Amino acid sequence: MQVWRANLRRQTVTQEDIPDSWIGLGGRGLIARILLDEVNPECDPLGADNRLVFAPGLLVGHMLSSCDRISIGGKSPLTRGVKESNAGGSTGMQMARLGIKVLIIEDRPVDDRWWILYLSPKEARFDAADGLVGLGVYESARQLIHRYGDKVALSLIGVGGERGLLAAGIQNLDKDRVPSRIAARGGLGAVMGSKRLKAIIFDGVEGEKPPIFNPEAFKAAQKEFNQALMNHPQTHIYRDYGTAAMPGMSNGFGGLPTRNFSRGRFEEVEKISGETMRELLLKRGGESQTTHACMAGCTIRCSNSYAGEDGKTIVSPLEYETIGLLGPNLEISDLDQIARMCREINDLGLDSIEIGAALGVAAEAGLLKFGDGGQALKLIQDIWRGTPEGLMLGNGAVNTGRILGVAHVPAVKGQAMSAYEPRAIKGTGVTYATSPQGADHTAGLTIRAKVDHLDPSIQVDLSRKAQVNMAGYDSLGACVFAGNGFAAAPETIRDLLNSRYNWQVSTDILQQLGKETLRLEREFNRRAGFTSKDDRLPEWMKHESLPPNNSVFDVSDHELDHIFD
Amino acid sequence: MQVWRANLRRQTVTQEDIPDSWIGLGGRGLIARILLDEVNPECDPLGADNRLVFAPGLLVGHMLSSCDRISIGGKSPLTRGVKESNAGGSTGMQMARLGIKVLIIEDRPVDDRWWILYLSPKEARFDAADGLVGLGVYESARQLIHRYGDKVALSLIGVGGERGLLAAGIQNLDKDRVPSRIAARGGLGAVMGSKRLKAIIFDGVEGEKPPIFNPEAFKAAQKEFNQALMNHPQTHIYRDYGTAAMPGMSNGFGGLPTRNFSRGRFEEVEKISGETMRELLLKRGGESQTTHACMAGCTIRCSNSYAGEDGKTIVSPLEYETIGLLGPNLEISDLDQIARMCREINDLGLDSIEIGAALGVAAEAGLLKFGDGGQALKLIQDIWRGTPEGLMLGNGAVNTGRILGVAHVPAVKGQAMSAYEPRAIKGTGVTYATSPQGADHTAGLTIRAKVDHLDPSIQVDLSRKAQVNMAGYDSLGACVFAGNGFAAAPETIRDLLNSRYNWQVSTDILQQLGKETLRLEREFNRRAGFTSKDDRLPEWMKHESLPPNNSVFDVSDHELDHIFD
Repeated sequence: MQVWRANLRRQTVTQEDIPDSWIGLGGRGLIARILLDEVNPECDPLGADNRLVFAPGLLVGHMLSSCDRISIGGKSPLTRGVKESNAGGSTGMQMARLGIKVLIIEDRPVDDRWWILYLSPKEARFDAADGLVGLGVYESARQLIHRYGDKVALSLIGVGGERGLLAAGIQNLDKDRVPSRIAARGGLGAVMGSKRLKAIIFDGVEGEKPPIFNPEAFKAAQKEFNQALMNHPQTHIYRDYGTAAMPGMSNGFGGLPTRNFSRGRFEEVEKISGETMRELLLKRGGESQTTHACMAGCTIRCSNSYAGEDGKTIVSPLEYETIGLLGPNLEISDLDQIARMCREINDLGLDSIEIGAALGVAAEAGLLKFGDGGQALKLIQDIWRGTPEGLMLGNGAVNTGRILGVAHVPAVKGQAMSAYEPRAIKGTGVTYATSPQGADHTAGLTIRAKVDHLDPSIQVDLSRKAQVNMAGYDSLGACVFAGNGFAAAPETIRDLLNSRYNWQVSTDILQQLGKETLRLEREFNRRAGFTSKDDRLPEWMKHESLPPNNSVFDVSDHELDHIFD
Repeated sequence: MQVWRANLRRQTVTQEDIPDSWIGLGGRGLIARILLDEVNPECDPLGADNRLVFAPGLLVGHMLSSCDRISIGGKSPLTRGVKESNAGGSTGMQMARLGIKVLIIEDRPVDDRWWILYLSPKEARFDAADGLVGLGVYESARQLIHRYGDKVALSLIGVGGERGLLAAGIQNLDKDRVPSRIAARGGLGAVMGSKRLKAIIFDGVEGEKPPIFNPEAFKAAQKEFNQALMNHPQTHIYRDYGTAAMPGMSNGFGGLPTRNFSRGRFEEVEKISGETMRELLLKRGGESQTTHACMAGCTIRCSNSYAGEDGKTIVSPLEYETIGLLGPNLEISDLDQIARMCREINDLGLDSIEIGAALGVAAEAGLLKFGDGGQALKLIQDIWRGTPEGLMLGNGAVNTGRILGVAHVPAVKGQAMSAYEPRAIKGTGVTYATSPQGADHTAGLTIRAKVDHLDPSIQVDLSRKAQVNMAGYDSLGACVFAGNGFAAAPETIRDLLNSRYNWQVSTDILQQLGKETLRLEREFNRRAGFTSKDDRLPEWMKHESLPPNNSVFDVSDHELDHIFD
């Protein structure tokens, strides 16, 4: 494995040995280390000095169930702090086959031409991206697959990233070559766009699987992990309902963000529940899939494919966060409308959480009517047209609130919250507040813990553990759902890493990786100018109570300040 | 003199004695002291905890030539730091006649109703503002004068302040009851709007002139100051040309911001020069005035009244900053168009500098064509309509750049630069960078110094002196042009203050006031989270050279960091 560097100004790709201090890190942790080592924390995130880092997790390359994720990072133009965003699909696997420990994208061209970076074992080169600029993500991916073959992995941006919109993500192909696996959060698509890089082709077809030091021990550990994962009851729920099973649960806790985070329960939740969607898709048939794997080898298969009445796919997947932010948050209960909005946002290469939150803020300002899915879709289409209205939404919830003069903006460190109300699921509120990544459920979700989610006294501890674990999983390349297997058999992480790399790590390696990652990320943010004042929920969430629990966010600032002591 | 406090929630007005530590301060310095004493530096500038402070300068109330200015302050929603913005007109004088050392506006109503605060020697009350909301500033002022009589002073906001736009200012009547004396910068109109206060009526008709401890000594000092002022050659230039004499000078230095601060010289400068405007107005006659006093007793009379071809006033005044930002910065050379845009911006209650800069940024993004005054006027009218496009512009240059993805935004601490290019007039660049107020020429203009404005080695010293002096003048209530008199006879400041207040200040009182003011302001900003990184010009101004001098801003960060040591 090597470090690959691509420089857009010089049009060069070089390979280097891995520095000692990077060897034990992968994915999210490695990104934090590299940002600290190489990126000025005060740089302009969309300037030449920022770097865009692609780092597969430590376990990537072996088709371990849902452990082939790709982490992408850089200084975020949305939060202006450290950023890692990860995705499933085939990119991680193909990078491992190319022997790439990490790919670092540097600088930007002197002129305005757009480029495709092609990487294979034989060749690394820059191809002109003429003709792709301005196209939708789906059509761009189709043309790229046509040009480079259907075995390659792709990372690409849409119009959102091209235009530097702060809600732009980076999309990756799923195992069926649908470009819907988006490293969505924090505006990394805008960073890629600032470097005039439309797409990266990871052509590992003639590459090799990464070497395993002790294959037998690795296989034994893999088997044990698989069994633990399959035995976990949650695994089967995800297969049947995907993440879309969640509306019922969060609504039950009064924590389903409704009408721009002003209520925690949605009257029409039945119309968007996982059960409703499953029945609908089974009835519609055609291209509908109620279960689908985003990456080869995944046994959980939490994804889906949402088809319309004619049996043709509208979008794949349609996940809880998207349903939550574009549905209840806008008081829209029509799944077809939500699916069409999601398709459009994907095609623009944007983060559906950030856009859904921005639309909620816009609705509070009266720019659209709550409940009017047709109008919401039109506003999303304004992003294509590049109208100031569209660009405002494409720059996320905080900017939308700033322009429209809306005080109720559900965001931390400039990034919108996902579909868990922090006044009802307070542990996740602690995560939103204190994660170096800004408000983000994937940084440490607490809703599944069997605790009183309203009791402020226990949430900091809960969030810290979740954040440490998640930072660990994000460094392994493991999906959060793989965590159910690892939690049941934690020694398998140790065994997998030791047999893969000839290391001697101990059973607490997950926590070690997680803690070190958080330490590095917080240090980057500190150098970027963040203080404890940035580790706060919006002030109004401390004062305005949330129906139906009529709770406020009442975890003390003091506790938040000492969460990582 | 007393401290008056108006509380919008309780609908009370109270009078208090002046705390000892406030007595020696006035205007800008007093505002900084009060903000430090009473306002949480981390508060939401548009929340209930911010305060809006009206403080006449120490010399206000005696018709000293151009020394009756009113300072208005609070935590700025635009810069999120300390803010003082001052204006001429009659407000300062009427406050002095009411015996108000400072008026502090606190809190906000529990509901959404709008209010007028009426203050007289006999009565302080809140009147309903029904019917005024949504009207233009000119029509609002007309109705208020009709209701309260034509002897009162008024401070009021327009639609900009009502909607919380970050470029909103607070307008005051000039001596002819035209509501064009705007405390424009930093979004204080939005603060007033957040408190649901449409207008304040200062009815000092039955009040008294402030007492003078030693009238004879005061009169002698006044005479001496007047003579020094009248003897200064600049005074006569201002009378003939007003500030509009400036385009020729700044253009000559290559420092006239042109085409969104991309060039320092405007090819069509002749069409907008002070000479051209004077000739045009003399030819047009009618309501045109080439010289006009904004406050009673001013001998400089730098203001003007700009009439159209039909001899009817389009706007009064039309000043250099407005001409610069709406003219060369947009490549518009038609004075009639510029005057109409200025009228519209005034009527909205917005800062023409901030709006002009925002339009420049929007033009760079292609939202309007450089040179197209008709289109620019239409965009300004979109602010009335409250379209997202209009609201974006009304929230200033930085927000416009953020939404439209424009990197070239001429701003510091969130506030747009005025019509002096910092790469050509580098001392003013130092002021933009280091002033606690954000980019603002009134914080310390250096263009009149007889130095090489391109030599980086001398600018920090020049700017510091200018900043200290201006902070002093802003504490006295003295117009920058009065400074020409005071500079020639500095002992008159000492004599005026000592005879007015029975003080024993020394001749360096101007510098003492200035230094203390800057110290207090910097401390407020420090507590609000500002660091040395905020004391910087935009990065691109250090790298991209400005024609015709092809100079960059090259005063070192180190020097900037130590300017106030």
